[in-house]
Amino acid sequence: MFRDITPLLASPEVLRESIHRLAQHYREAKIDVVAAAEARGFIFAAPLAIELGVGFVPIRKPGKLPFETHAFHYELEYGRDTLEIHIDGVSAGQRVLLVDDLLATGGTIEACCNLIEQARAKVAGCAFVIELSDLGGAARLQRYELFSLIKY
Amino acid sequence: MFRDITPLLASPEVLRESIHRLAQHYREAKIDVVAAAEARGFIFAAPLAIELGVGFVPIRKPGKLPFETHAFHYELEYGRDTLEIHIDGVSAGQRVLLVDDLLATGGTIEACCNLIEQARAKVAGCAFVIELSDLGGAARLQRYELFSLIKY
Repeated sequence: MFRDITPLLASPEVLRESIHRLAQHYREAKIDVVAAAEARGFIFAAPLAIELGVGFVPIRKPGKLPFETHAFHYELEYGRDTLEIHIDGVSAGQRVLLVDDLLATGGTIEACCNLIEQARAKVAGCAFVIELSDLGGAARLQRYELFSLIKY
Repeated sequence: MFRDITPLLASPEVLRESIHRLAQHYREAKIDVVAAAEARGFIFAAPLAIELGVGFVPIRKPGKLPFETHAFHYELEYGRDTLEIHIDGVSAGQRVLLVDDLLATGGTIEACCNLIEQARAKVAGCAFVIELSDLGGAARLQRYELFSLIKY
């Protein structure tokens, strides 16, 4: 299942408006930091962090971060994967907003949530540009606050 | 040779100011589109595209883009690599600003320049947050306009 987000990125108006609407939703949510998994998540998370006036923390595949990391290993349909975050990326009690372009089965974002909680921070919300409603992501992530700009 | 950019990302003021200064430099440069290679390049390129009011085009490793692509194969110190861009990502004659976090040997950004020129667009500039001056990147890219916020 795939949605091509590049036409959205190619339009300055749509890109700007997407970030603006995500920021509006979280403006009063006392977000301390925005985090996202590479690579497409970075495209929306960095401008959103800037618009919310908070820092941005990258979540990456193993071996990509230069400092000590927390790691979370998880199962995918087609094998195992690992995501990492710097040990000083989020701190205990911080309210973290996770961002991705697309919510499909929710496997990646659930791994990100686990990584944040492993660092004893709190997942204050999971924000997506597009949600593919039939793939079970929302059910899998039901213990979190979820927000999507567009649902298919 | 490595610089850890995550402390810069963690500071909302520094992140915002970095984007603002990059935008200031290119405000009058008639940029049509901002492009960047995954993954760290996306972090600065997307907010910069928004601030300049132009679209953003991702450049990715093979197999990551869903539509037809131009591909550019290039040599690295430790083997070969390939970068791809959608065939509708940039069009002939467009002025493209390439963005990356770090200029080191310049291999990746030179590959991006070749990809843009293969699509018959023009590299209007190459912008970096940090330039490591001793690694020869500026000499390798001397036929392009280069701009870095910080030089080591």
